[in-house]
Amino acid sequence: MIVVMERGATEEQIEHVIARLMALDFSVHRSTGEVHTILGGIGPDEVAPEVFEVLDGVKECYRIVSPYKLASRSFRPEGSVVKAGGREIGGTGIAVAAGVSRIESAEHVQAVARFAAAAGAGLLQCGLVRAAGEAGLNEARAAAAECGMALVVEATDGAQVVRLAQAADAIRIGGRHMQNEALLEAVGGCGKPVILNRDRAATIDEWLMAAEVLLKAGNYQVVLCERGIRTFETHTRLTMDVSAIAAVKRLSHLPVLADPSKATGRRDRVLPMARAAIAAGADGLVIEAHPDPETAAADGQQALKPEQFRELMRQVGAIAAAMGRGR
Amino acid sequence: MIVVMERGATEEQIEHVIARLMALDFSVHRSTGEVHTILGGIGPDEVAPEVFEVLDGVKECYRIVSPYKLASRSFRPEGSVVKAGGREIGGTGIAVAAGVSRIESAEHVQAVARFAAAAGAGLLQCGLVRAAGEAGLNEARAAAAECGMALVVEATDGAQVVRLAQAADAIRIGGRHMQNEALLEAVGGCGKPVILNRDRAATIDEWLMAAEVLLKAGNYQVVLCERGIRTFETHTRLTMDVSAIAAVKRLSHLPVLADPSKATGRRDRVLPMARAAIAAGADGLVIEAHPDPETAAADGQQALKPEQFRELMRQVGAIAAAMGRGR
Amino acid sequence: MIVVMERGATEEQIEHVIARLMALDFSVHRSTGEVHTILGGIGPDEVAPEVFEVLDGVKECYRIVSPYKLASRSFRPEGSVVKAGGREIGGTGIAVAAGVSRIESAEHVQAVARFAAAAGAGLLQCGLVRAAGEAGLNEARAAAAECGMALVVEATDGAQVVRLAQAADAIRIGGRHMQNEALLEAVGGCGKPVILNRDRAATIDEWLMAAEVLLKAGNYQVVLCERGIRTFETHTRLTMDVSAIAAVKRLSHLPVLADPSKATGRRDRVLPMARAAIAAGADGLVIEAHPDPETAAADGQQALKPEQFRELMRQVGAIAAAMGRGR
Amino acid sequence: MIVVMERGATEEQIEHVIARLMALDFSVHRSTGEVHTILGGIGPDEVAPEVFEVLDGVKECYRIVSPYKLASRSFRPEGSVVKAGGREIGGTGIAVAAGVSRIESAEHVQAVARFAAAAGAGLLQCGLVRAAGEAGLNEARAAAAECGMALVVEATDGAQVVRLAQAADAIRIGGRHMQNEALLEAVGGCGKPVILNRDRAATIDEWLMAAEVLLKAGNYQVVLCERGIRTFETHTRLTMDVSAIAAVKRLSHLPVLADPSKATGRRDRVLPMARAAIAAGADGLVIEAHPDPETAAADGQQALKPEQFRELMRQVGAIAAAMGRGR
Repeated sequence: MIVVMERGATEEQIEHVIARLMALDFSVHRSTGEVHTILGGIGPDEVAPEVFEVLDGVKECYRIVSPYKLASRSFRPEGSVVKAGGREIGGTGIAVAAGVSRIESAEHVQAVARFAAAAGAGLLQCGLVRAAGEAGLNEARAAAAECGMALVVEATDGAQVVRLAQAADAIRIGGRHMQNEALLEAVGGCGKPVILNRDRAATIDEWLMAAEVLLKAGNYQVVLCERGIRTFETHTRLTMDVSAIAAVKRLSHLPVLADPSKATGRRDRVLPMARAAIAAGADGLVIEAHPDPETAAADGQQALKPEQFRELMRQVGAIAAAMGRGR
Repeated sequence: MIVVMERGATEEQIEHVIARLMALDFSVHRSTGEVHTILGGIGPDEVAPEVFEVLDGVKECYRIVSPYKLASRSFRPEGSVVKAGGREIGGTGIAVAAGVSRIESAEHVQAVARFAAAAGAGLLQCGLVRAAGEAGLNEARAAAAECGMALVVEATDGAQVVRLAQAADAIRIGGRHMQNEALLEAVGGCGKPVILNRDRAATIDEWLMAAEVLLKAGNYQVVLCERGIRTFETHTRLTMDVSAIAAVKRLSHLPVLADPSKATGRRDRVLPMARAAIAAGADGLVIEAHPDPETAAADGQQALKPEQFRELMRQVGAIAAAMGRGR
Repeated sequence: MIVVMERGATEEQIEHVIARLMALDFSVHRSTGEVHTILGGIGPDEVAPEVFEVLDGVKECYRIVSPYKLASRSFRPEGSVVKAGGREIGGTGIAVAAGVSRIESAEHVQAVARFAAAAGAGLLQCGLVRAAGEAGLNEARAAAAECGMALVVEATDGAQVVRLAQAADAIRIGGRHMQNEALLEAVGGCGKPVILNRDRAATIDEWLMAAEVLLKAGNYQVVLCERGIRTFETHTRLTMDVSAIAAVKRLSHLPVLADPSKATGRRDRVLPMARAAIAAGADGLVIEAHPDPETAAADGQQALKPEQFRELMRQVGAIAAAMGRGR
Repeated sequence: MIVVMERGATEEQIEHVIARLMALDFSVHRSTGEVHTILGGIGPDEVAPEVFEVLDGVKECYRIVSPYKLASRSFRPEGSVVKAGGREIGGTGIAVAAGVSRIESAEHVQAVARFAAAAGAGLLQCGLVRAAGEAGLNEARAAAAECGMALVVEATDGAQVVRLAQAADAIRIGGRHMQNEALLEAVGGCGKPVILNRDRAATIDEWLMAAEVLLKAGNYQVVLCERGIRTFETHTRLTMDVSAIAAVKRLSHLPVLADPSKATGRRDRVLPMARAAIAAGADGLVIEAHPDPETAAADGQQALKPEQFRELMRQVGAIAAAMGRGR
């Protein structure tokens, strides 16, 4: 922690700040400059700079050590590869999950799994609306098993986690729950890989801090997923932050996916953003698909038709090859 | 729903859109213009415009009826007054809740209740960290009861709601949980007033839609609370959207509070934003307070000291009086 | 400048950074920590942190001295009062400028001046569309003179400045031109007070840096004006950043106005935001007005009618009195 | 224009709106529904919806015809190819401009031109600081001519345009000047191609409207350039809006470039964003480069070194090939 005192801060103010730093277990190094006195504190990483910024005589305050440690690149410079049900995320290839927003029937989820697997997708990601419940989960398992896909299911409540972790190959935490600490801790202890979506208003640091909670709870199989941030541009629902993909690959050792379906909210915008994500260095994609999107029970407008899904796989494969990656 | 077809849309495309509208229970009125064919559909309010926007030949689509009904001003043009434990929110006076981020001990919450009540605050709002649990709840009840304050507690999980509703005078839903449907439905059926914080990335429409879920579930005692949105400006953590206060008072009959402590995240920025909120028409405030913020267990940097709380009440009272409102 | 080296930065990398700091006229203090080596540099304020952040082995970099000096509060702790044509901005009273977006005729600008002055406005601010030119300027001067108002005119081009400064009491720089350096320098040397609008995408620091350019050019009569920032909320065109008003009053000695007409873009949203601005500590307002807004040549939707203008002056006066300020 | 009246709007209010529409040259079609009366108006495209939204009894208002016409895709469905000094932008290949932020000497600009041209860049884009002036322009011309590159120079003032258009192959308008109407009109009549940067706070519609001003002034050789928008994420200076590239290719026939140097502000972030832009469908790139960025007179932190520039050209070429485009 570096605390910069204001020009003209009194000796009493400076000593009060030093006392506060020490009370919070920082060791302090004082440097008295011509203009500003600067206090360098070494101590617990999680203390927020605002704690000192509101003290009298303080100009501003910086945290020089990242608030996340286990999630940082320096923790594992070679990068992590996460394995979900035998499928690699973060390896040399590109991982693609076909997304099913709501399971309508056994036939529906089976149809998606079949055409997606045939096109090369290795994962099946399902939202489990409360209504679908156990039946939906079994239908999804059967479909994934038939097609040799790894099954990812969404958890929205800590109480579901044990059961979901038992049945599926990986758990997804949606953006809305990115900072739901009870859920993060439950998933952190569940023993299965996690896909952690970025909240639409989360900075990259907040996103990595949420990953840190999972890692601290002992789950090292964490995959990040960029799915759009809220900006002033309303042409699409959210704005996919492609630059965050490249940034996170540098800051962290964790694999990164992109979800252009959720980011754009419109099927006619998914393809170029899928290509861009891979070109920026993403380790894979989540792409919503439906055998007949116009009749979908939910989110049909952002689901690809089978032929669109196949074309996406073809084009994304070409970009991946240009990046020196297989699929 | 108004669907504007592109210049040059084919007859086949137009008829496909009409068929989709009718399949979703819309009655359709077609208007063929020189440039654009326009389809007006009357039907279910909750269908999203994107459902039609992705169809071939469609230029754009507007929902002309607000997606919320029970929350809209026209539902109750005279405005609503919510009563929590005998305290009015939305009446002629200004309601102020003293906020306690984390209960540290019976003495701590009692101290806040005492100085806040003495300064004129009628509500006591407590975050119940899981650790504090039942003990914290009882301490908060005792403190509120001693000082004649209404008690508001935060719910983060549907499973807690029955117990909290039994013990407290009102439930708060934090911004992070604004779109947590399971929680909204549990609180919607709990029989106690609700304070619904705006998510930091939620548009006003999304916020009112969340309120609509509560109202639809049968809970008409809903209070809105603005607590800052995420913008590019980083001078404070969030940017309090003062204009949303005025906007929501026009769009909805529900009372509106503002929480400048959460919005700014710094105690030295709370006072002017509290005055501004009241001047913009807010029905009250949530102000975090602590007997000795520098030693607070959590969020001390945004809690006012007792003398700052008193000064805020004095200044806010003067603004309220200038607005023709008491306290 | 504080440069934090990455964990594991090599000695060679550290020495390269030191050499770069010294090449840019910084004197360097090195502090070798257990985890991070930190370099403190004292030197020219205007060097951007990114200059060092892109060097190999650098983790991050902070500028500890504000990039603006003359605009900072510490330069003149008691605050500045600017006088335009005998009218004070930043004194104990509240300054109100009636805004005319486009001068339609001598009668038009005269009518605005008359009803605004009668309601208590002391300044008349006019946009001079190129078409209006010299004739419009003369009409505006006559109207202001008749009503005893100070005249503010907008400059959009360095070449206009000498003439405008001769004819008017103050110059306004619109938000779009906030970083137009040629214009800032011309206005900086013109000898008349300036009102500097915030660009809709400018941080507070960027805004104060633009003011610094004016001050450095020798013009100390600078007034800031908040007129809305772009956020994800589209309910109004821009979002008036009320918190910036309070922030700037602390960071800088310069007076601050607010322009709720430009910020909201709709006359039915102007009044509450005008009250909020004054309650947050603004030194005055710019309020667009028109004798008959529905027939206005430009921006009629954001101009107040005469009776609305009078009502605003009455309500703003009450808030100002509650703040202990006259009008 | 579609005007939706509020539930309960009076007949008098409806007729007033109709009168206002007709006064502004709209022909009106009235549709009286069970809940809402809707008025459809056909008339001038440039009237803003807010003009009607502030009238009593109006709920909301939509403009169903895009405010831009000449810039829209339907105006030239096959897309436009712009030729600058013999170089195509928007054809089958990818166009790359090497960017020089500030010309330091004849040798400096010559060095950039040489290594960039050798790596395959066909355009040389120079910022002409006022100081550099005519000398810098001549040095840039000589360097471009020697290497067979097309020369693009930035214009910041209408008065410069005639001279610059005479000397260069194309004019660039920076984002800050995107809505500077005097400049747009001067460039619109200059007879040379234009590269129009997006303002960091401009919506896609505002950007295309600025292009429309150029087209209306008779200049059909317009190229758009995405260079980052301001969002809450501060990891890089701006956030490159990759989705805007794909969106604009659909909405408009104009070619689109991306400038990842300006968007990220850091040379270590340029490469992945360059690949992503091409994968999203951009017609080319602007990439700042310098023989020795650490000693650059301006913006060195965002300029690539020669070997980085060559590597970027290699990788971008591979992505372009995967897209079926040459370079």
